[in-house]
Amino acid sequence: MSITTNLPLSVEWKDSYIQLLDQQKLPQETVFIDLHTIHDVFDAIVTLKVRGAPAIGITSAYGLVLAANSYNTASLAEFQSLLRKDRDYLATSRPTAVNLFWAIDRLIQVSLQASSINEAKTNLVHEAIQIQLEDEATCRLIGEHALSLFQKNDKLLTICNAGSIATARYGTALAPFHLAKEKNFPLSVFACETRPVLQGSRLTAWELQQSGVDVTLITDNMAAHTIKTKEISAVIVGADRITANGDTANKIGTYGLAILAKAFDIPFYVAAPLSTFDLSKETGEEIEIEERSPEEITHLGGKQIAPDGISVFNPAFDVTPNELITAIITEKGIIKGDYTKAIPTLFKD
Amino acid sequence: MSITTNLPLSVEWKDSYIQLLDQQKLPQETVFIDLHTIHDVFDAIVTLKVRGAPAIGITSAYGLVLAANSYNTASLAEFQSLLRKDRDYLATSRPTAVNLFWAIDRLIQVSLQASSINEAKTNLVHEAIQIQLEDEATCRLIGEHALSLFQKNDKLLTICNAGSIATARYGTALAPFHLAKEKNFPLSVFACETRPVLQGSRLTAWELQQSGVDVTLITDNMAAHTIKTKEISAVIVGADRITANGDTANKIGTYGLAILAKAFDIPFYVAAPLSTFDLSKETGEEIEIEERSPEEITHLGGKQIAPDGISVFNPAFDVTPNELITAIITEKGIIKGDYTKAIPTLFKD
Repeated sequence: MSITTNLPLSVEWKDSYIQLLDQQKLPQETVFIDLHTIHDVFDAIVTLKVRGAPAIGITSAYGLVLAANSYNTASLAEFQSLLRKDRDYLATSRPTAVNLFWAIDRLIQVSLQASSINEAKTNLVHEAIQIQLEDEATCRLIGEHALSLFQKNDKLLTICNAGSIATARYGTALAPFHLAKEKNFPLSVFACETRPVLQGSRLTAWELQQSGVDVTLITDNMAAHTIKTKEISAVIVGADRITANGDTANKIGTYGLAILAKAFDIPFYVAAPLSTFDLSKETGEEIEIEERSPEEITHLGGKQIAPDGISVFNPAFDVTPNELITAIITEKGIIKGDYTKAIPTLFKD
Repeated sequence: MSITTNLPLSVEWKDSYIQLLDQQKLPQETVFIDLHTIHDVFDAIVTLKVRGAPAIGITSAYGLVLAANSYNTASLAEFQSLLRKDRDYLATSRPTAVNLFWAIDRLIQVSLQASSINEAKTNLVHEAIQIQLEDEATCRLIGEHALSLFQKNDKLLTICNAGSIATARYGTALAPFHLAKEKNFPLSVFACETRPVLQGSRLTAWELQQSGVDVTLITDNMAAHTIKTKEISAVIVGADRITANGDTANKIGTYGLAILAKAFDIPFYVAAPLSTFDLSKETGEEIEIEERSPEEITHLGGKQIAPDGISVFNPAFDVTPNELITAIITEKGIIKGDYTKAIPTLFKD
């Protein structure tokens, strides 16, 4: 995989420590911090220095490796017991992050299969690296599939940060843009700033700019005017959760973009790995929408921008119904049409 | 007209000076400033302490009254000449504000019809008060007509500040809410914050809160989810300019709301006085859309929220095509259907 872009990795294993891109400092400063202990990792997750489900999973796996390497015991059973305790400790850092549990439990399984402490330590670091490599491969495949849907000089619209810095590399909805840059395939992107937390302006605009992608920042309410006057070719977004019928929960604002795409008769694409599908839920109606603190809307960077005591409605996500989604792009390929029938084919192997 | 709400007036004539609500201080502070000279008025307009075309027109008319009262001459011709000079001076404060020219030129006409300085002074103050009273009456009529379209407990969605503080009183799109409060007619409003300049959170949320209206603030990208989950009854917005076919230029984001209203099968209303119609333009295609400074998007309250050097697209307005507009509400009544035929009926008298 040739990497020609200048985009920094969100997480990198440096043999004895983790180098982490501090996403809280973006976009003003590109600062890397070194994590030497599991406590450093815990703090980095809690303080949102690392964000994005895959990136959190990878970082927590390396965190368990740091912990394992620090144990001072000759007993494999004690080693395994210490690792289990540290797994439970890390699990409390972000209890809603599914990828975190999935990653650290993979490492626990590896430790249980080892016949010596040395073997366990070696296999743990290999497993953590494997998790990162698998995620990168997944994202790259999503990017390849997405790119197959685009023409040269297409103009795409996106929201939030389904990006490289939320994953091992490439991201999901942003993967085709990083890949296109590697392949000298010209595309341009309009990024919605994504109020209230501004992942679009703070992260997506920064990340695509670092890669040298032609990116233009707009506020969320400029989408309709931009689609019309800039002749946007398609909308592409990531997903937080996709139910069995293809209904997609994603960052607030996604649903509105899907309605606009239909009104302007342009495709609306969701790009997401198989790990995003929640087949225990039949439709998006079953997804509970988290409501977050009013201060996210009434304050910005410590500055108050709305009157004291104002009522606020602050849903973090919305649900886009399947009929508005032209296609769902995964590492296993692109599905469209009757999602209830198409989604199970992705999980056949 | 009984006024039961607590909403402060944006402009008030105090016999020898103007009391002005400093809109730059909102929503954190409700500060009134006294304008004693035409220079005070000029500064207040330039520094955006007063905003909204009707409010600027009213303030500039009172500004000419302040100037006229300060002249030390016994010659009517010299009085008229001084007033013309001060009219030209005020005209440079906000050269794109049509209402400003319209208001100060009405005062110039009055001064030219006077047969003495005393008569001129008396008639000038009467004319300025008349301009304010006419605007209040216009807004109240718009509010009455708009309110006739709503049911008790309706939930409305709006954007920007087509409000009382932009006019003599009541506003245009916000007039029905202030009136409903006077009449104890229960309505609730969801106000889009209106990025990038946040007229929704800073002004509309504040203004409706002052009136005791049930208002909830959302970010612009929450509109689709809010319409669906809160069962919004209709969208109502103001207008910056309406062309002969009903196409409506208004604050950026309006067009997207009109598309959402159609998708959710709820009415989309434009509330505006006849002075907003520009019959010299046949369609919205002829309206040039102002693009404003990138800093409005990349910075907020002096804080940088996007990466250095990022490309930005910052259109101040968009154009909603007539077919998305359920009705246009004016002081002369409500029009709908074929706007090209309906609009001329408004101007028959």
